[in-house]
Amino acid sequence: MKKYNKKFLAVPGFKLHGIHTGVKKSRRDLGIIYTDNGVSAGVFTQNISVAAPVTISKKHLENQITKAILINSGNANACTGKLGFDNAKESIKVLAKELQIKEEEILISSTGIIGKQLEMDKILPSIPKLCEELSSTSYDNFPESITTTDSFNKLCSCELLIDGELITVSGVAKGSGMIHPNMATMLGFIQTDVNISKNMLQEIVSYVVNDTFNMISVDGDTSTNDMVLSLSSNLANNKIVNDKTKDYYKLQEAFLFVCKKLAISIAMDGEGSTKLIECNILNSKSDLDARLMAKSIVKSSLVKTAVFGKDANWGRILCAMGYSGGSFDPEKINLTIKSKVGEILLMNEGCGVNFDEMKALKILNEDKLVIEVDAKEGNNSATAWGCDLTYDYVKINAEYRT
Amino acid sequence: MKKYNKKFLAVPGFKLHGIHTGVKKSRRDLGIIYTDNGVSAGVFTQNISVAAPVTISKKHLENQITKAILINSGNANACTGKLGFDNAKESIKVLAKELQIKEEEILISSTGIIGKQLEMDKILPSIPKLCEELSSTSYDNFPESITTTDSFNKLCSCELLIDGELITVSGVAKGSGMIHPNMATMLGFIQTDVNISKNMLQEIVSYVVNDTFNMISVDGDTSTNDMVLSLSSNLANNKIVNDKTKDYYKLQEAFLFVCKKLAISIAMDGEGSTKLIECNILNSKSDLDARLMAKSIVKSSLVKTAVFGKDANWGRILCAMGYSGGSFDPEKINLTIKSKVGEILLMNEGCGVNFDEMKALKILNEDKLVIEVDAKEGNNSATAWGCDLTYDYVKINAEYRT
Repeated sequence: MKKYNKKFLAVPGFKLHGIHTGVKKSRRDLGIIYTDNGVSAGVFTQNISVAAPVTISKKHLENQITKAILINSGNANACTGKLGFDNAKESIKVLAKELQIKEEEILISSTGIIGKQLEMDKILPSIPKLCEELSSTSYDNFPESITTTDSFNKLCSCELLIDGELITVSGVAKGSGMIHPNMATMLGFIQTDVNISKNMLQEIVSYVVNDTFNMISVDGDTSTNDMVLSLSSNLANNKIVNDKTKDYYKLQEAFLFVCKKLAISIAMDGEGSTKLIECNILNSKSDLDARLMAKSIVKSSLVKTAVFGKDANWGRILCAMGYSGGSFDPEKINLTIKSKVGEILLMNEGCGVNFDEMKALKILNEDKLVIEVDAKEGNNSATAWGCDLTYDYVKINAEYRT
Repeated sequence: MKKYNKKFLAVPGFKLHGIHTGVKKSRRDLGIIYTDNGVSAGVFTQNISVAAPVTISKKHLENQITKAILINSGNANACTGKLGFDNAKESIKVLAKELQIKEEEILISSTGIIGKQLEMDKILPSIPKLCEELSSTSYDNFPESITTTDSFNKLCSCELLIDGELITVSGVAKGSGMIHPNMATMLGFIQTDVNISKNMLQEIVSYVVNDTFNMISVDGDTSTNDMVLSLSSNLANNKIVNDKTKDYYKLQEAFLFVCKKLAISIAMDGEGSTKLIECNILNSKSDLDARLMAKSIVKSSLVKTAVFGKDANWGRILCAMGYSGGSFDPEKINLTIKSKVGEILLMNEGCGVNFDEMKALKILNEDKLVIEVDAKEGNNSATAWGCDLTYDYVKINAEYRT
């Protein structure tokens, strides 16, 4: 029923576009998502230092109709005080006038450097151009316009049948640094055409984010700006999804599929990374225990550098579980490392086992690794994704602003 | 009254020694602290995956008398199951026989690689040699014997008068990686000759660790092995400190002095680091808020790489405060960066200020930096110490085991 498209599928009723205003040196840096009568949902950063666009989008999300999302990259408009807030409002005002819609029908996102005022002399004059060029075929220009240090665009689409109607769910995300669990780790925009109530769309987004974007970590830093917004054009002819019916769960599954692919793309594109790390905690006492341990492992600098060094240093994995806050019995743990070329047991019943170092090296040589921990205490599992910590991470972040 | 000695002061009643057994390639790797009738206190790692020596030392600390601490480096004896436990017990047994003391009068510490069984063929035959050579003048050999990736030995002593008697407090610590708040971040051994009850010594150690060793972070990883042990020979002629008298607080101050210097030494020697970062949170609503924020800042990979890159990227500092769990009002924050050549205000009332980049660079060029945050909400302050994140941190940890 579902299929994964690296190519982004246009969603009926949506127009997307992105242009270059000059905030970033050469890449597109101002993007828009537009639909005539959208139903919207969102999840926002939990960082206390929130950026102006987060505050405004939270407020505007209360409106029943959302028609547009304006996104700028290169400048986060965070820690910019009253002027930052006014600048975001001014951008919305200009866009509202241009599109002849209400200000509260617009959501806004920013990503980039913290603490610099938006370059309004570049952004404001570009808004009319952004709107003029906006068409049902301009969506290919959008993904780049929301990126910062990303090394590739992050897209995923799937189609499914709801009430006999072919529905599209398409997501675009950005994120590479300042990525850490608890929402608020990146920007994600999920469009769909399913006919759905605002409440149900919010429920799906909240549920899905918890198992996807909230389970990735690049550097443990939860950003000031991050949000996942979802917009439906409601153009499909299905009977409206306004309850937790079978169709609701089918749709949830599709959102989960798209968001998981996007989340993994972000972990894979972690600044300077050479390897994707997936960590599965199996048979844990509780869901929370499993989540805490999985996140702690993918976040540990010592695990991350060991993976970079292709070193089967499983002691660091057990150490990261031990300070995670999750509960487990160290003497029951089995620990296996896997990649597409094979798997190797490193720890049995809490004790290190002698293993073939050459086989381990061969497994660790791959660019996608799975760390599997069997806690043997219950029926709960969790998966988190991260990446290795490399010289290039240091290089990128030591030289970011200057 | 107090003075800081880079040179370690011998404490009356103590013998220390360290030798090379071959567990580490060339450096000393087996150490001992001995006193005839010691009173002991300790604080241990909070990691669930505790090493065998932690379990044993916790138990033996219940004994009223402690005569010796045996420390091996190069192997943590963690995640080594029943055999690991038996090996630690066996080492104690051999030492007890050699010194003709009881097994429960011995504490044991290990530090080094996790998950490998102790090389008993190297350690056991070395114990008689360690005891034979142990004398009141062999203490210079001790500090090296507890180190792993440390680039220098960490020592601090001070003298003070208690009840008219000259008392010595001397500490030795190790730690460079796997260093993170919540105790349990390293090994520390504090010797004194003050006449004190076991309860009061424990109270002092618990109090002091909280403001010193618990406030440093190198990489956010709380180790499986760490402990701070304190031993008094009780040889001084002062009236016994067995209550919270003026003398108790004088002694606490001396312990605080020694442990703070040792803690800072560890942060300064953070694996691969080039700079020491001190973070002061001032005028916070509560002590806990201040602590959470200070620790979060020194732990942030993005702050640490910015410091390495000499980049006054204060947005990352505010971001780290925002996800710390500590409460503050982002619109009240003043943020200043200081070093011995000057200071510069980067943020005023929650808003970035224009600052002289050349002046900032000059300040950031120094190897000791202070990040000062004024929360303007209360009277509580906290200080944490950390270091920058560099290419060499990645190098050291990618290549540690192999």
